[in-house]
Parts: sequence; C-alpha cells; structure tokens
Amino acid sequence: MIIVGGGPAAISAGIYAVRKGLKTLLIAQDWGGQLNWTNLIENYPGFESITGPELVKKLVAHLKKYQGEDLEIRERSEIKKIEAEKEQLVKVEADKVYQAKALILATGRNYKKLGIPGEKEFSSKGVSYCVTCDGPIFKDKKVAVIGGGNAGLEAALDLLDYASKIYLLEFLPQLTADEYLQKMVRKNSKINILTNVAVQEIKGEQFVNGLVYQERDSQKEKEITLEGVFVGIGTRANSSPVKNVVELNQEGEVKIDEKNRTSVRNIFAAGDVTDVSHKQIVVAAGEGVKAALNVYQYLCRK
Amino acid sequence: MIIVGGGPAAISAGIYAVRKGLKTLLIAQDWGGQLNWTNLIENYPGFESITGPELVKKLVAHLKKYQGEDLEIRERSEIKKIEAEKEQLVKVEADKVYQAKALILATGRNYKKLGIPGEKEFSSKGVSYCVTCDGPIFKDKKVAVIGGGNAGLEAALDLLDYASKIYLLEFLPQLTADEYLQKMVRKNSKINILTNVAVQEIKGEQFVNGLVYQERDSQKEKEITLEGVFVGIGTRANSSPVKNVVELNQEGEVKIDEKNRTSVRNIFAAGDVTDVSHKQIVVAAGEGVKAALNVYQYLCRK
Repeated sequence: MIIVGGGPAAISAGIYAVRKGLKTLLIAQDWGGQLNWTNLIENYPGFESITGPELVKKLVAHLKKYQGEDLEIRERSEIKKIEAEKEQLVKVEADKVYQAKALILATGRNYKKLGIPGEKEFSSKGVSYCVTCDGPIFKDKKVAVIGGGNAGLEAALDLLDYASKIYLLEFLPQLTADEYLQKMVRKNSKINILTNVAVQEIKGEQFVNGLVYQERDSQKEKEITLEGVFVGIGTRANSSPVKNVVELNQEGEVKIDEKNRTSVRNIFAAGDVTDVSHKQIVVAAGEGVKAALNVYQYLCRK
Repeated sequence: MIIVGGGPAAISAGIYAVRKGLKTLLIAQDWGGQLNWTNLIENYPGFESITGPELVKKLVAHLKKYQGEDLEIRERSEIKKIEAEKEQLVKVEADKVYQAKALILATGRNYKKLGIPGEKEFSSKGVSYCVTCDGPIFKDKKVAVIGGGNAGLEAALDLLDYASKIYLLEFLPQLTADEYLQKMVRKNSKINILTNVAVQEIKGEQFVNGLVYQERDSQKEKEITLEGVFVGIGTRANSSPVKNVVELNQEGEVKIDEKNRTSVRNIFAAGDVTDVSHKQIVVAAGEGVKAALNVYQYLCRK
C-alpha cells in the first residue's frame, strides 16, 4: 500500500500499517505539514506544551523506528498524479511511478493563494502566509494583511509583536471574523482597517515595496508603500492530485465515510484533506490510524 | 456541559471543552480505563514507547492543568443513571444529581463477565480479567483461562511467563482465535486445551481453589484444582447508563454519526463506548476532541 503525506495523519497511518505487517511505501513532500506553522501546541493530549517543530520531530522519529523491509519512505518527493487503475491497483506519479493495491491520501491543507500579479514572484521576498514562520523578519516594518476573516485578523494580531504598522484589507464592506477578534483589532491604533477594497497587485524590485488596491465604491486605485504582505484568507485541502479521481465536496475536501473510504474502493483518505468535521492534530492522527486499519481489513479480510 | 469518563476520549474532550470556554464538569469513575491493563504502548503517535500507567499520568496531568472555574472534576464517582430531560437538559445521577445542557458519554469498555457462581465472590481473590495487571501474582501456580478467542489465547500466552500450568477452556468444539495464535498455543506443553466444555462454577474458600466444568458431549462434570482463573472472553461497551436513553447497536455500543451525535440531540459520545470502527487510544483521543468541538457548535452556534 502507499501512504501519501507527511503530517500527523500520514505518520500515524504509517506506524499502524507497518505494525499490521502491510508492505508500505510512504511518500512525503515534507514532514509535519501545518504543524510547522504553529508555535506552541497545548492541545495534543499527552503533551501539555510542545512546539510544532518539536512534535514533528517526535512523530517522524516514531515512524522511522519502523523503517525497513516493510516500510519504505520517500522524502521530499512531490506527487504529480494519482490514478485508479483497473484490476484494483492505484498508480502514483512522484519521483518515479509507483503501483499499489491500496492508497491512503493524507496530504493535509495549504494556504489559499490570492492569484494576483506579484504574489508568486515575491513569495519569500516579502509575501508570506504564516506569521509564526516569518513574522520576526518584519520587525519595525510596515506590512499589510489581506483577509478580514478569522485567519486574517489572527495574523494581524500576531503581527503586533513585530510590525510598526499593519494595514488590514478586506474585499467585503465589513470584516467577517469573530466579534471578539474584531474588537481586539479595532482597539489597536497600529492596525489600519480598509474594507470594501480589491487588492490588485503586489509590487517590488528585489523585495516587496508596495501594494496596489482599488476602493470598490469609488473605483479609485490607491497604493501603499510597505515591506511585507501577509495573505490570510485561510487554507484549502491539498486534494489536487485526486481532483478527477475521487469525489470532493464544495470546499475541495475529499469525501470519506466512517471507514475512511473515498468514492474509489481502494483509495482511502485521512486528516485535514478530508471532510472530517474538525481539523485538529489528534483528530488527524486518529483518522490516520482508522484509515490504516481499514486498509488492512480491505486487503486482508477473510 | 458534562463529560462522563476518565479515559483518553473523556480527557481529550475535557481539554478541548475548557479551551473553548465551555463550563464543564467531568465525572470519572477512574482514570485511564483500559490503558491500565496495558503494559507497553508503542502506537500512540509521539510516544515511541510508554507504559499504560505512565500515559494515563501524562493525560490526567494535561487535563488537570485546566482545572478551575471552567473545569470541575469529580473523581471516583460512579454513574448511576443518565436521563434526557425536556427543555434540552440532561440529568446525571452520580455522587449527587447534576444537570447540563449537553453531555459527552466516554465511558469506554470493560471486561465481559461469565456470570457463573463464584466469579463475583472471588474477584481479586483468584479471579482476574487482566494478565498485565495480575499475572505476576500467579508465579509457578496452576491457572485456567476461559475463552478460546483472541482475548483468551493472548491471555494464555502472556501467562506463560508466570504460571506453571495453564488450562484453556472453550465452550465451542473448537478454538476461534486467529490461526497464528492457535499455533503458538498448541505447540506449548504448559497449555492444556479443553474444548466443548461449559464452565459452571469457580470454587474456593478465602481464595480460588478449583474450577468445575461440564464436558458437553458426555454431560460429565469435572473439577480442576487450581489457584487462579482468568476470564478472557473479550470486552463490552460501558453503555448501561444510557441503555434506554440512546440507540445502541447489537453489541451494545452507542451509535454515533460523523459529528459524534447519538439519537438524542444533546447527548454526544466518543471513544470505545461507541460504534467507531476501531478501538485504539489515539482514535479515542481524536473522537473526544471531535465530540467536544461538536458540543461547542451545538451550544454556541450563531
């Protein structure tokens, strides 16, 4: 069987698969996924307080204890394509092409992109998606946060520790975040809220130096001089490798049943890439375990 | 809200409920549940190897960090009755009567009983359900294991470290455990297999000293002189407090949907007491988290 992913769901699935004696290949583009964006984790039962990268290290070490004949690991390997084949095989295109009798998709979630000029060009050159990761770079600098929902406001509040000035831009006429977050943001004079604006371009030379937006009422174009742009419009499921293979819901999440089965009988899924009701580390870990045990039943049932 | 239970599901639910600001009462008859019966745990992601009691200690410490105004804990408190009340309240009878707007049942599983004379009387006086817990007491002694399924054969194999002689008794004409376990048991001369026998009574004075069974073919009654009886016929869901309140499946497990809802709208359930597809520590923990977040949505949805 093949497990695709490197976060808590994939790692937990791997530990259980190999302990069940399944011949397993785990293909991970990176380790830990969203855990890397988190500073302090205080809600993974058993660890009162641990940093994201520390928990990643523990999970990966736990998995690698089982590396060997039954568990092969391919790291830093990007998934290009996943196909359901006839004769109950599934094919994965990564660094090379792999075939297996069953697959668990546990590719997690990633940040949503704006899709405007300059975003890709200046990624890691002033454009960021993660305050925990990149906040300190913008010490005493002017930055913008795009997004008036919870993700955007949380980013703006976290940036208060670093930035000298924060522009918060929202497309709609009003912020949509929880009232509690809105209050925190409004009472801070370092945060300048601009609603009903369409962000049009991120400008720069070697690094970001400006942001162009349009006031939607007046249709007037304006520019802010700044050094950083944080995109805070949420995350989306990394389901593109199976987009036309298994059924997705409207948000692009892989639909699963109570046995972690997708709409294709030998493709299972687990964790934040799925429509599971909550996206939490230990939920993903538990779902990974369920998926592995359900694959075991699927492959080895009497 | 009220959480009933003291294992991984209940504890994880408690941690999340209080972090979400829900006013929570957790009622635990004991801490850790089935974890206490386990020697070494190597499949809780993040801990490569930890004893059951050690993991219990970590989980309880994690929960108790949040004890205070929002989280009240009642320990060593037996649940007598749970009732769904009108006006969307739920009532729990324990050391006293509690009322709440919602409840999470996370009472786990316990060993199945034989229900024969002497079983209750000599419990902890030679009658045991857990080799991990009580095995060492029977060093160099003669014992019986009741049950020819996986639970029974695993108990018999674990007892090889201690007992001088092991009688393995099964009601059916053949053992029902996995072939692999049967082979291990059959090749060991310390284990004496008796099939097609009905165990009738456990005898003793202060402690167990004998076991009476009937050969089902000949209807003959026989007696074995021994010092210990291990009952290894599996576990059952601790669902009796909600037996006539929420819907159970044929095995007595609480039926839940993908949002951990039972058939009563303000009663949720999580972990091994439910019909979740796999009974594993981290699965239970994840289910507890889901239940708490779903209760939060139920109570606080806009």
